[in-house]
Amino acid sequence: MSVPVDPALDLVLARDLSIPPGDVWRAWTDPALLVEWFTPRPWRTTEAEIELHPGGMFRTVMAGPEGEVGGGTGCVLEVVPERRLVWTGALLPGFRPTVGEFGVPLFTAVIELEPLGSGTRYTATVKHADEEGRRIHDEMGFEAGWGAALDQLVELMSH
Amino acid sequence: MSVPVDPALDLVLARDLSIPPGDVWRAWTDPALLVEWFTPRPWRTTEAEIELHPGGMFRTVMAGPEGEVGGGTGCVLEVVPERRLVWTGALLPGFRPTVGEFGVPLFTAVIELEPLGSGTRYTATVKHADEEGRRIHDEMGFEAGWGAALDQLVELMSH
Repeated sequence: MSVPVDPALDLVLARDLSIPPGDVWRAWTDPALLVEWFTPRPWRTTEAEIELHPGGMFRTVMAGPEGEVGGGTGCVLEVVPERRLVWTGALLPGFRPTVGEFGVPLFTAVIELEPLGSGTRYTATVKHADEEGRRIHDEMGFEAGWGAALDQLVELMSH
Repeated sequence: MSVPVDPALDLVLARDLSIPPGDVWRAWTDPALLVEWFTPRPWRTTEAEIELHPGGMFRTVMAGPEGEVGGGTGCVLEVVPERRLVWTGALLPGFRPTVGEFGVPLFTAVIELEPLGSGTRYTATVKHADEEGRRIHDEMGFEAGWGAALDQLVELMSH
């Protein structure tokens, strides 16, 4: 079941992976694994906190090579183990509205996994409020950044 | 199970009602019933659309006595039949982030019902992004408005 996509407002990264959905799920939901791959190198994710239920926390701290700081605190919305994870930067834990804290326009991330032989069809859909938000996130390097992190995830889980 | 409350940021309306949780639930989730009570008179709710699943639409159109227009489109977050309904004005349907469309600061509404003899313990908790948002909503008459609408709900379902 794929999420509806609005091409004017959404960014999508879809890939067929060699590792199974359970491994992708663990890499996305276990903070000890998330910090290993979540940020395209040379950025690093230095902290992660995930409460895996609707209303739970999705928090990361990111560090850049020149001492930049990134990340922020969002809210988990939907949890379907090994199939679908939805979280947003537009709400804080407990569903509290927020003004953006992540370094990009407010977005909602929908991570969808489907078994594909012994691998995974992976789709990350990122929803923005308006075309301006999508454009800024696109020009920040969404495809390259989310793709590089996904490569790191596959590498991590392939060992 | 009650939602955690931050007194500096949340507004709460709690009442013990004479009607059972199932009736309160139907009044909140059936658009044909919602339009009968949702807006403190002389305001009226002229349209309502509710998709009762996470990511679904929560949309109302309101009309004031002098031709004012209100309401807006939000997103359903949690659905526990006859016990707990969570929706937010900070997201659009499909979890898309939004800039506020409702006439008040962005908020998340948590409606909780508990059986109480033949009646209901009713708690509406409204969460804001900051103290300014809570203050504006409070001064707009949160307690009187949400209370008057709740009286209308009980009257509607008592027939």
